[in-house]
Amino acid sequence: MTDARPAPSGSLTEEELTGLDAHWRAANYLAAGQIYLMANPLLAEPLRPEHIKPRLLGHWGTSPGLAFVYTHLNRLIKNRGLDAMCVWGPGHGGPAVLAGSWLDGSYAQRYPDVSRDEAGMALLFRQFSFPGGVPSHVAPQTPGSIHEGGELGYSLAHAYGAALDNPDLLVACVIGDGEAETGPLAAAWHSTTFLDPVHDGAVLPILHLNGYKIANPTVLARLPQQRLDALLRGYGHEPLHVTCADGDDPGTVHQAMAAALDTAADRIAEIQRAARDDGRAEPPCWPLIVLRTPKGWTGPAEVDGLPVAGTWRSHQVPLPSVRENPEHLRQLESWLRSYRPEELFDEQGRPRPPVLGAVPDGDRRLGATPHANGGVLVRELPLPPLERFAVPVDKPGGTLHEPTRVLGGLLEALMAATAQRRDFRVVGPDETASNRLQDLYQATGKAWQAEVLPTDEHLSRHGRVMEILSEHTCQGWLEGYLLTGRHGLFSCYEAFAHIVDSMVNQHIKWLKSASALPWRAPVASLNYLLTSHVWRQDHNGFSHQDPGFVDNVLNKSPRTVRVYLPPDTNSLLVVADHVLRTRDRVNVVVAGKQPCFDWLTLDQARAHCARGAGIWEWAGTETGHGEQPDVVLACAGDVPTQEVLAAAKLLRGQLPELAVRVVNVVDMTRLMPEREHPHGMPDAEFDALFPPERPVIFAYHGYPWLIHRLAYRRAVHPRLHVRGYKEEGTTTTPFDMVVRNDLDRYRLVMDVIDRVPGLAVSAAGVRQAMADVRTRHHRWIREHGADLPEVADWSWSG
Amino acid sequence: MTDARPAPSGSLTEEELTGLDAHWRAANYLAAGQIYLMANPLLAEPLRPEHIKPRLLGHWGTSPGLAFVYTHLNRLIKNRGLDAMCVWGPGHGGPAVLAGSWLDGSYAQRYPDVSRDEAGMALLFRQFSFPGGVPSHVAPQTPGSIHEGGELGYSLAHAYGAALDNPDLLVACVIGDGEAETGPLAAAWHSTTFLDPVHDGAVLPILHLNGYKIANPTVLARLPQQRLDALLRGYGHEPLHVTCADGDDPGTVHQAMAAALDTAADRIAEIQRAARDDGRAEPPCWPLIVLRTPKGWTGPAEVDGLPVAGTWRSHQVPLPSVRENPEHLRQLESWLRSYRPEELFDEQGRPRPPVLGAVPDGDRRLGATPHANGGVLVRELPLPPLERFAVPVDKPGGTLHEPTRVLGGLLEALMAATAQRRDFRVVGPDETASNRLQDLYQATGKAWQAEVLPTDEHLSRHGRVMEILSEHTCQGWLEGYLLTGRHGLFSCYEAFAHIVDSMVNQHIKWLKSASALPWRAPVASLNYLLTSHVWRQDHNGFSHQDPGFVDNVLNKSPRTVRVYLPPDTNSLLVVADHVLRTRDRVNVVVAGKQPCFDWLTLDQARAHCARGAGIWEWAGTETGHGEQPDVVLACAGDVPTQEVLAAAKLLRGQLPELAVRVVNVVDMTRLMPEREHPHGMPDAEFDALFPPERPVIFAYHGYPWLIHRLAYRRAVHPRLHVRGYKEEGTTTTPFDMVVRNDLDRYRLVMDVIDRVPGLAVSAAGVRQAMADVRTRHHRWIREHGADLPEVADWSWSG
Repeated sequence: MTDARPAPSGSLTEEELTGLDAHWRAANYLAAGQIYLMANPLLAEPLRPEHIKPRLLGHWGTSPGLAFVYTHLNRLIKNRGLDAMCVWGPGHGGPAVLAGSWLDGSYAQRYPDVSRDEAGMALLFRQFSFPGGVPSHVAPQTPGSIHEGGELGYSLAHAYGAALDNPDLLVACVIGDGEAETGPLAAAWHSTTFLDPVHDGAVLPILHLNGYKIANPTVLARLPQQRLDALLRGYGHEPLHVTCADGDDPGTVHQAMAAALDTAADRIAEIQRAARDDGRAEPPCWPLIVLRTPKGWTGPAEVDGLPVAGTWRSHQVPLPSVRENPEHLRQLESWLRSYRPEELFDEQGRPRPPVLGAVPDGDRRLGATPHANGGVLVRELPLPPLERFAVPVDKPGGTLHEPTRVLGGLLEALMAATAQRRDFRVVGPDETASNRLQDLYQATGKAWQAEVLPTDEHLSRHGRVMEILSEHTCQGWLEGYLLTGRHGLFSCYEAFAHIVDSMVNQHIKWLKSASALPWRAPVASLNYLLTSHVWRQDHNGFSHQDPGFVDNVLNKSPRTVRVYLPPDTNSLLVVADHVLRTRDRVNVVVAGKQPCFDWLTLDQARAHCARGAGIWEWAGTETGHGEQPDVVLACAGDVPTQEVLAAAKLLRGQLPELAVRVVNVVDMTRLMPEREHPHGMPDAEFDALFPPERPVIFAYHGYPWLIHRLAYRRAVHPRLHVRGYKEEGTTTTPFDMVVRNDLDRYRLVMDVIDRVPGLAVSAAGVRQAMADVRTRHHRWIREHGADLPEVADWSWSG
Repeated sequence: MTDARPAPSGSLTEEELTGLDAHWRAANYLAAGQIYLMANPLLAEPLRPEHIKPRLLGHWGTSPGLAFVYTHLNRLIKNRGLDAMCVWGPGHGGPAVLAGSWLDGSYAQRYPDVSRDEAGMALLFRQFSFPGGVPSHVAPQTPGSIHEGGELGYSLAHAYGAALDNPDLLVACVIGDGEAETGPLAAAWHSTTFLDPVHDGAVLPILHLNGYKIANPTVLARLPQQRLDALLRGYGHEPLHVTCADGDDPGTVHQAMAAALDTAADRIAEIQRAARDDGRAEPPCWPLIVLRTPKGWTGPAEVDGLPVAGTWRSHQVPLPSVRENPEHLRQLESWLRSYRPEELFDEQGRPRPPVLGAVPDGDRRLGATPHANGGVLVRELPLPPLERFAVPVDKPGGTLHEPTRVLGGLLEALMAATAQRRDFRVVGPDETASNRLQDLYQATGKAWQAEVLPTDEHLSRHGRVMEILSEHTCQGWLEGYLLTGRHGLFSCYEAFAHIVDSMVNQHIKWLKSASALPWRAPVASLNYLLTSHVWRQDHNGFSHQDPGFVDNVLNKSPRTVRVYLPPDTNSLLVVADHVLRTRDRVNVVVAGKQPCFDWLTLDQARAHCARGAGIWEWAGTETGHGEQPDVVLACAGDVPTQEVLAAAKLLRGQLPELAVRVVNVVDMTRLMPEREHPHGMPDAEFDALFPPERPVIFAYHGYPWLIHRLAYRRAVHPRLHVRGYKEEGTTTTPFDMVVRNDLDRYRLVMDVIDRVPGLAVSAAGVRQAMADVRTRHHRWIREHGADLPEVADWSWSG
């Protein structure tokens, strides 16, 4: 036993120690049982091959350590009457956490069939890694969890998200040493610089070093302890070490763990007292526990002559051939019996009282905390009336506003209205002001616990805007915050949302699985504001031009994902108001921060956004006498809308006889078939917007093939021609960007002429004139470094 | 000045000091000039508004610090005759690095117009952030760079990648304190545990703390120095501090920087000597420089009454209104003249000799090092003949092999063949063995410098398999390795490739831009082996099921991206052999690790992969008399191929009169139109494979809409029906996965019956029989936890 910061040792009474050890043995027994047994759960008879699952799946390696943590958190919570939860980071930690939840009764509360008796134990064992059963990771199905242990790296950011604005909550976070090698985890350590000891709760990281990932040692487990301690101190933590080496008496390890947790809880209480009562402002040094235990602890020491416990061979199923190999079967039985199940469970399979001696009651149980089922805590946001922020629109295109700047006013009001409740946060990678949402700072500051210099602006120990140059950390914080029953918005440069592709994929999977569980109440949606978008990266160039985040999101469960492209300021307000009211979704809103023409009044925007897609009669030249237009100009996104309206204006002037319809799409999923997405339009409605026999020129904000992918089943599809971003970018002017990608008004007019039957000849002169402007533009921009004046100065007068 | 580890100070002679300062002032002058000037580059006349660019874009804040590093690296390289390169991490660092390259002459070497005289200086200024000019980031266009400073976070991993297997190379890496907050950067610090001081070169991180990102202070800059030092020591570094506070004499800072670099170089040399000559095996503690300078150092101290230098206000353009505001114009002139350009450049604008006194020559210049233009160094890989590894195939489907395991043999041979050259590496997040490539360990070990325990296997200080549980680090290492002229393979669980979506997007953008530059020679392609794929996550479940990485990659430049889905073992060998020979591409190969039927002999696989898509006559029931089949069953991916062949077999038995064609697609981009992708099939060829009037049932490995997106222009498209993964997953059996997603053989037969005109009635009984098997499967799997025996046992006998 090494204990670099010696904590009072041996404080457990003999009875406490016996009870804790019994709970831990019970959890280990149940964990191993889940991996192996499909019958004879209490070992009432000698183990036979037919008791063993035909296919052994699951992971033993991390389980005993997690069971150990569960046991000791129980004691800490019960002894101190804590409000606590735990984020279980290690991959494949399912067996141990399911065991803990089964023991504390929260599992049967959620799944009555899996009762706390022999029948329930048999089901618990059987369902594990069974087709359609429960996965070997901690998952949405696991009571008490807000974190899936599948894709690794997000536990610590989730834990911080849970602790924000929950001043009385202790969030323990077990970090596996495999997971600790990931980038997102490595970045999340710096959350200590953002956690407010006054308004936020505490995060207690438990770095679980069992030494191995799948087949390799882990970096942190093999650092000399002095170097590891330096690293953890650099992160802002004071490490407390609990170490079990091979052959150590578990009793000693129990004493050390109990003492370490007591010390940590004492220090946390003192940090919070000093900040809250004494107004202490220095950034605290939070405790952290380094728990070293052998991988596969208490499992078979040797199998087939090779060492297993304490090595990477414990990662999955330590005895792989139990059904076929009598020696393995014998070893398994002896291993399972080593926990002395008869002392732990009565004849009916119910845990005996000493096992449950330290288990807390009711909502304090780790498996039952409402914080891990945030939907039961979430409240409606006090959203202010949009009339306060809407911009006046006398006529379409008569004025310009910066959409995100106006949105900033709405967010400011929302931030102010939640000043007491503290259940709304805005996160972003240092781009809140760059994205023109700086009005927010009238209502709150940017969270910051470190040194503040006189030239800094808007930093605040208690701020609710969170800025760190890590999209991963922003995403993880927000996920943790939402899953514990609060609200938020992630504002991000459009291109860099791809950084969290995989995280949002996992969050969508979580929401899909969670929404199938009756006991999980819906949580607030994860809302993205993607701005500083592909068309306006004038000085950032090619690396900042990528509209593909929505393509990734739209691969996922249609019940969960929504994509909105509001065309102007008032429609952005309407969309933002809507998404902030939704539940269990991932809403992606793409909107510019640059001056944008105002097309719609607030009422018009409300009606248009409610439809999600509709005809803008004032922009087209249809007769309105029930005849079909000659061509449909469709648009989605602010820049494409501007170009389509400019093209419509050009057509009106140049080809006045042409009946042009302008359709704007706000909600991209409306383009999908009705049976593939809840927002999908019925074919009749779609065909009324886009007459099947008429060509459609669709100007889209992102990659053009997305529109084909959404609309390929529609009758008009053979006549659908899409323009969008085709990966042609550089440092250049806004208009040059649309020209390079053939999305400019002149090209759109040419497309119309090319596609409307009969126009090619009669409008050849107009087509040539359009081509000439584009040629002139090419030359002009090379010389002047600016757009043609007529392009930059155009204004709509519909 | 603080210098925690005092290095010998004041070692620069007066002449050296003067020269270095002159170079730095020249670089600062050139950096500011790029942001502001479009005429009068030498300030030969008083500055007037018309000399100023109409639109001021660019970032001053980080530039003087980077210029300072460039200046001092020059000296270090020249004094010691080093082989060195630098990775410039900070965003928007372009002006300083372009200035350095212009001064050392490497810029004019690449771009003769931008000559080292007044005319060239004028062009250098004008092109910066000018439409179609050069971006404000370090980019492919920047001589001496392998790293784009656009999306932040990857510099350190790139630097390590460059250093691997380059024993004589010093890779300096400037890390911005903004970038240092990202996850990928935070993870990459642990690369110290993998760098071999014997066979690899050195990485010298220069952590540049200028205190701010866009509008916020940075975490690392505000840590107390003791905590920062602890952190850096935890990462395995001994920090050397160079600090310039407000008002410090630049001469003192020059002395400190020169001393710190000398100390660092001495320590690196000693570490390498000890490891190489003495065989010292302990992991070394590598030096690192912490460079603290004010943001916008040497720029305007105050503008409009607000402090600018040393604050976040220096981030972009410190004087924003120079053309309009005479006071700003005056301030700019005074700022530019503060560098005393007349001392730095002669009347023709050529740098005066003292400015260039410390600039190294030829290939040693930072802008000219061949290591940063890896295509000039790359050699053909000694790929062994595939016959050595190919599996014998007597008849299609008669045998099973694990494709990736067989590939492991090829990789082993390649690893062995490059044992001396050391220009091939395999990276992966601890999954090499899990992905069944473990034969590799016969030829090399896993790189590991930390402690090794007796139970560890295959760890080696000199290994060329790199495993860290960070996809970001793996990707960054490999990118750095490839861009410096070597070869490699990234083996990854399919679902978790999404973690690097954004990195591969940026790498593809790099390759696209680089391939447009005549002076950049083609580098080896970035090759992914995505395995442990969506269909075989039996025990990992939903979180591990995501085939969308290829969707993301296929949004990008068609000249760069390729996606291959070899259907069996021999075709995987052929594809792997091919991609390892290509240049300047991103190749995604998706292949299973589970036993897979062998369909093709090596020769057949060669012919089939060369076509990329083709008819498998032996699997279908066409007459071959020139008639069109009744239906086409198409497949891409190993599991879909198996299901399609099983469906074809069922159809042959149940509906023998039906003419079925089986088409297998290996190269997904062949489905695209010829004009959209270089591999795209001409319509005639496509229509010959897929007759326009016949229904196609396409079983695809991933999201089905990808096929529609690729093929929507084809004549057959209205009759194309695609089955694939539609986000229905869980922990379950392999066959249940295909059933849940309607990709199973029985469903495919039903699809055929539903789509072939006239079959609905005549084959109603067959259809019902298929539906019955599916129902039976549902029941069976719930009871037995295993697939129906007839499903698991099926074998192909074509």
